[in-house]
Amino acid sequence: MKEFELIKHFFAEQNVKRKDVLLGIGDDCAVVLPTDHQNIVVTTDTLVEGVHFPKSTAPRAIGHKAVAVNLSDIAAMGAKPSWLSLAITLPEIDYDWLTEFCAGVFTLCEFYNVQLIGGDTTQGPLSITITAQGLTPENGYLSRSGAKTGDWLYVTGDIGDAALALKYLNGEVTVDDSFVEQIKTKLDYPKPRVLVGQALREYVSAAIDISDGLMADLGHICQASNVGANIVLDAVPLSKAMHDSLLFDDAINLALTGGDDYELLFTVSEDNKVGMETALSHVGTTVTCIGQINASNTITTTLNNKPVTIHSTGFEHFSSAP
Amino acid sequence: MKEFELIKHFFAEQNVKRKDVLLGIGDDCAVVLPTDHQNIVVTTDTLVEGVHFPKSTAPRAIGHKAVAVNLSDIAAMGAKPSWLSLAITLPEIDYDWLTEFCAGVFTLCEFYNVQLIGGDTTQGPLSITITAQGLTPENGYLSRSGAKTGDWLYVTGDIGDAALALKYLNGEVTVDDSFVEQIKTKLDYPKPRVLVGQALREYVSAAIDISDGLMADLGHICQASNVGANIVLDAVPLSKAMHDSLLFDDAINLALTGGDDYELLFTVSEDNKVGMETALSHVGTTVTCIGQINASNTITTTLNNKPVTIHSTGFEHFSSAP
Repeated sequence: MKEFELIKHFFAEQNVKRKDVLLGIGDDCAVVLPTDHQNIVVTTDTLVEGVHFPKSTAPRAIGHKAVAVNLSDIAAMGAKPSWLSLAITLPEIDYDWLTEFCAGVFTLCEFYNVQLIGGDTTQGPLSITITAQGLTPENGYLSRSGAKTGDWLYVTGDIGDAALALKYLNGEVTVDDSFVEQIKTKLDYPKPRVLVGQALREYVSAAIDISDGLMADLGHICQASNVGANIVLDAVPLSKAMHDSLLFDDAINLALTGGDDYELLFTVSEDNKVGMETALSHVGTTVTCIGQINASNTITTTLNNKPVTIHSTGFEHFSSAP
Repeated sequence: MKEFELIKHFFAEQNVKRKDVLLGIGDDCAVVLPTDHQNIVVTTDTLVEGVHFPKSTAPRAIGHKAVAVNLSDIAAMGAKPSWLSLAITLPEIDYDWLTEFCAGVFTLCEFYNVQLIGGDTTQGPLSITITAQGLTPENGYLSRSGAKTGDWLYVTGDIGDAALALKYLNGEVTVDDSFVEQIKTKLDYPKPRVLVGQALREYVSAAIDISDGLMADLGHICQASNVGANIVLDAVPLSKAMHDSLLFDDAINLALTGGDDYELLFTVSEDNKVGMETALSHVGTTVTCIGQINASNTITTTLNNKPVTIHSTGFEHFSSAP
């Protein structure tokens, strides 16, 4: 137990020192004082070894990903991440492992000026739970529930690379050597779209991050907004690695259902389209229009302007909803 | 995985609906809007099966304790608890178990008007991580670092019953039947001293909750405040169960080192003593003066007005500090 006390020192040293943190690690609670008239957004995500990442995953990647998946949720709210609480359960104390894990955590924290304000270190099977918080101007947050009929449907980046990497690591697909590092990086070191999320805040009607898969997460938007949507499959942005490694149908299916992309999926009214694209041009992230919101209660897909039926987990999940 | 989605419904239904929660469970993040000029206190605690509670523990007690240990940290800051995020990792889905676990969580939440605003449900070895937040008036929080030479040292309630219960359950001590339920309740259903913490806010120089053990937690206050302390062992409040089950020396030793009490340990200046006692008379919790802060760098103990040496984990932990 004493050794676990010592681990705290791994986490106590950090370069980010925010003005709104009055008391950081080391007391019964951290104390923060956000400036007035701000919303605080709060999210919690757990990564369990063997469930959310393979046992062979590099500790630096585990640290990075544990932070990234939470910041991705903050990004989807259009918020600026501010504080993290980190609970880590470790089977044993391995200083090299912890050093690498912390490097993964703190590199991302420093990049976004996020301060680790507390947590807990316990003994047991490897698992990490992070609670991340962020700030938006009062009532300035994005949610899943604002999509309207006629809104355009957009995604950031390319979809499916993380799922392709997982298939590759499981020996289910062959990938050309020239793409392997790129897709593994997408799986292990996802980039939360934090700046994009904030840039979108004024223009977007609904947003979500793609963690469960494009289809499932679009389902979440449609359910919360009480609308339907059509996806133009030809428009779904796929990387060269996806095109090169899979037949088109398989690539599309993986992109729709794979998950772990941590790109943003969002809806924009016709009136806000130009404003959104201009705002995004400053953050240097590509976005692609992949469809449109409609008044139906289902998600449909078209290919070459013709309706096609997709049977996927995401689709079934949505269509079975009340 | 879909089943784990369903579990969310266990947590989505709750009676507490706070005005400062703009968006609760169901989006990428929760959104809260505290009123202006308030500090937010944040704490995270993990309970792992087999480490923090025996496998035989009732699910209702696990739910209660997971919340209670966090609210106890909030109490030690003098704050009013407001929001919880709950991450639960379960080996399998057992609806009866979850129903009882949730009853434990929500009974305590409702009592203190705390709203569950989010979390995560994952598959793996049983463990619960809660991040709890609370509010205090600006700069009105308590910490471990304000104890001054001459301050009086107080504890709430009785000390050692939870440790006695654990010894009893492990077959290490005999306890009269008439005490068994009482001490097991102290272990399984600790009462966080939430109202006491708030009542103390204006009067107290330093506070901590006793989770590691009286000696270790006093060590934390002394380290953070750069002071020493003397404990009058005759004054340490012990229950009838403790007196009846153990010799005095063993009882005191268990009270000093046992932990899991979740009582508050705090320091008060001579000037604030009467004010503190008057304020506490309204919340109906007994407090006992057990010693005094001094300018030394150690923790000493006296019995019958004579110095005695105690060798305990807590004491060693403190004396080995820089």
